[in-house]
Amino acid sequence: MMVFNAVALAVALAGPNKYQAAAKQIGDKGLVELGAYSMLIELCTSVGNRIAGSENAAKAVQWGQATMQRLGFQYVHLVPCMVPHWVRGPVEQCEIIDGASLTCCALGTSAGTSAEGVTGEVIEVTSIKEAQALGERARGKIIFFSRPFDFRLVSTFAQYGTGADQRFAGPGTVAKLGAIACLVRSMTPDKDDVPHTGTTRFDGAPIPAAALSYMAADKLHLALQRGPVKVHLTLSCKTLPDEPSASVVGELTGTEKPHEVIVMGGHLDSWDKGQGAHDDGAGVAQSLEALRLLKELGWRPKRTIRVVLFMNEEISGTGAEAYAAWAKTAPEKAYAGLESDSGGFAPREFSCSLNARRAKRLDRWLPGLSYFEADRFRAGGGGGADVGPLGNLGAVLFGLEPESQRYFDYHHSDKDTIDKVNPRELELGACSMALLVWLISEEGI
Amino acid sequence: MMVFNAVALAVALAGPNKYQAAAKQIGDKGLVELGAYSMLIELCTSVGNRIAGSENAAKAVQWGQATMQRLGFQYVHLVPCMVPHWVRGPVEQCEIIDGASLTCCALGTSAGTSAEGVTGEVIEVTSIKEAQALGERARGKIIFFSRPFDFRLVSTFAQYGTGADQRFAGPGTVAKLGAIACLVRSMTPDKDDVPHTGTTRFDGAPIPAAALSYMAADKLHLALQRGPVKVHLTLSCKTLPDEPSASVVGELTGTEKPHEVIVMGGHLDSWDKGQGAHDDGAGVAQSLEALRLLKELGWRPKRTIRVVLFMNEEISGTGAEAYAAWAKTAPEKAYAGLESDSGGFAPREFSCSLNARRAKRLDRWLPGLSYFEADRFRAGGGGGADVGPLGNLGAVLFGLEPESQRYFDYHHSDKDTIDKVNPRELELGACSMALLVWLISEEGI
Repeated sequence: MMVFNAVALAVALAGPNKYQAAAKQIGDKGLVELGAYSMLIELCTSVGNRIAGSENAAKAVQWGQATMQRLGFQYVHLVPCMVPHWVRGPVEQCEIIDGASLTCCALGTSAGTSAEGVTGEVIEVTSIKEAQALGERARGKIIFFSRPFDFRLVSTFAQYGTGADQRFAGPGTVAKLGAIACLVRSMTPDKDDVPHTGTTRFDGAPIPAAALSYMAADKLHLALQRGPVKVHLTLSCKTLPDEPSASVVGELTGTEKPHEVIVMGGHLDSWDKGQGAHDDGAGVAQSLEALRLLKELGWRPKRTIRVVLFMNEEISGTGAEAYAAWAKTAPEKAYAGLESDSGGFAPREFSCSLNARRAKRLDRWLPGLSYFEADRFRAGGGGGADVGPLGNLGAVLFGLEPESQRYFDYHHSDKDTIDKVNPRELELGACSMALLVWLISEEGI
Repeated sequence: MMVFNAVALAVALAGPNKYQAAAKQIGDKGLVELGAYSMLIELCTSVGNRIAGSENAAKAVQWGQATMQRLGFQYVHLVPCMVPHWVRGPVEQCEIIDGASLTCCALGTSAGTSAEGVTGEVIEVTSIKEAQALGERARGKIIFFSRPFDFRLVSTFAQYGTGADQRFAGPGTVAKLGAIACLVRSMTPDKDDVPHTGTTRFDGAPIPAAALSYMAADKLHLALQRGPVKVHLTLSCKTLPDEPSASVVGELTGTEKPHEVIVMGGHLDSWDKGQGAHDDGAGVAQSLEALRLLKELGWRPKRTIRVVLFMNEEISGTGAEAYAAWAKTAPEKAYAGLESDSGGFAPREFSCSLNARRAKRLDRWLPGLSYFEADRFRAGGGGGADVGPLGNLGAVLFGLEPESQRYFDYHHSDKDTIDKVNPRELELGACSMALLVWLISEEGI
């Protein structure tokens, strides 16, 4: 209670200083203890990568629950959901007939090939529209989506936004046209030989679909400049029946308005590549750490602050859907949602679903948030895929937006490992999240 | 000239849009070509690390001059300076007598030991003041400065600012008290076993002085908690006679006010560890790239924009002194100075020597600079050690201030290598520098 009184004193300070004082108390603890990094090491190394439906995903659920219990969160429980169970399998091979091998990996939900693989002539396209225009010419062919990111865009999320439709909708589009397989340039600005996976959507029957590394995509593009190219592709991935899984939930219950709930979270599943360190072990560790900091500082929030570790963000978002459905029937109000799913890099700003005029009122908190170098609210953002559905329940949505340049170098690939995370950058994000949810809890929006 | 006309058009746009339009033109070229990274690869790999006085430093001078000539800069020349010639030597060993070995490296300007090394009892101190208070007790002893960074500070430069006096002044202080050697905890927040060197100053005769890795410093601290500790230290470093060297200079001469000179630069020397990638290959490559971009865009500045690659920043700043002395006698005015020497990370802001009121007027440029995510002028800064002396000649000083969290993980150590640099983060800094010097040139301060 000594600690709590110290806070009461700090918060009693006049003007912006009270926000800075609160920030300093959070930072003095967080930046010395670096709790987010310790938790991320555990998740990345003792659990490892954890695609929805896998044994590791089940282990991650157990780990999340045990961690919340160890930290003394309240009402620790699971919100069940069904998840797809797609398995990569050991064989992923692609080569140009009488030519170079092409480093690849299956896209999530891809069909496998037969053990002998498929062979077909390659048609290169640079957009969904161009693929659709192929019509009957696509039948029996392997369609190659080759458009790289638009590197002129400064934000790599903006780059991803202009390229990812090829991965997400490309294979499904050409499957309908009778293509026998689909290749997609990896969604990355890093021009190396590591392929980046990710989900793709088929409305009908899936076909084999693989990401080529950036360099392999360049090789194939160059080969096609010289004349017709046939490619042989073998993938041993397969889809098993859906599995039950769960999101993990725990909270500090509000002292004055416990029924007004501020959700803070990231997703517990990852791709089956690397360790899912930045995507989204970082968001998981930061959310746990943010609530740990508030709890151990002895701060008792007026509103309920709840951590949700969402299952199956990567493939089909069923964890977020199930949580929103659960929250809708619970005797409570979804007051706010804060998501961290843009990597564990140094914080820069918070996106916010409020319009510019209303977001402006939150600028009073910036003297506190800028202590951690998160120094803007960007109005009109959506928070993220996991807290997004809470918007329909009336929650104001926020997203932690860190420095973006390195995220897609690692994203969905074997490079997304703990050594790519700086302990202090990760913790600064956690501290800024702790302060934001605390201020929402104490002052309202 | 077509290009130049396009710029004229862009700049003719009204309001902040003209700054954004100029930023976009710079970014569209820079972010696609990534010229800063290409140049940094060359410097790091074909030259390598390049401590002042070394053969590699001479190679770096040749490389800088050849690069400026290749890029078509005007008036490419050298400004000579004398530099110290300190050589590390192959032997750097430290161990607790009857105990653990301690990973170390000599500090720059350290004396060597005899081939047998020195052995002495260790006294641990945490500040210069505490060391001075030892008085006669320091005689014949090895003094160990053990204070770590204050991790609660968010900026790692602020952390360095509170710790680096131990490395800089510690050995000289205890040398005067008759200590036989000095050990200093590495100036880093990264708690690993890699030692970080750096310069230290002796007013009188130097003594052997070494940085311990963070972990070695912890080991020695723990050993001292249990009782008296003797350490054996062997260093084969030595100081040879001063050598002639030079800073490298090239420019785009101004079309309207050629005598008003905007200097932009970083330092060409590095420590003899790693590759000097972030410190300060990054600043060198960014300065070259910024002027390359302006030149190749066909933009002809009103004022002269000059790149200076300063020699010997790390040990004693003689390159910056010699350049300022040269500039003082030249028939020109030192109008502004912009330094990049804080690592090749994503830009965040520019420090500026103007007071807050005058700096405020530069905020009109922020719509352009924030295109590269450098979105603030921080008044009251000093630019940096190399452009600093130009302040006495009346120049307004600026410093590129990137994200700071990782800088001291690599700084002055074997970890400062090209793989720690993200090509796009580096280029964003170069682009923001190009825009800032362009705006200074066109509009004045």
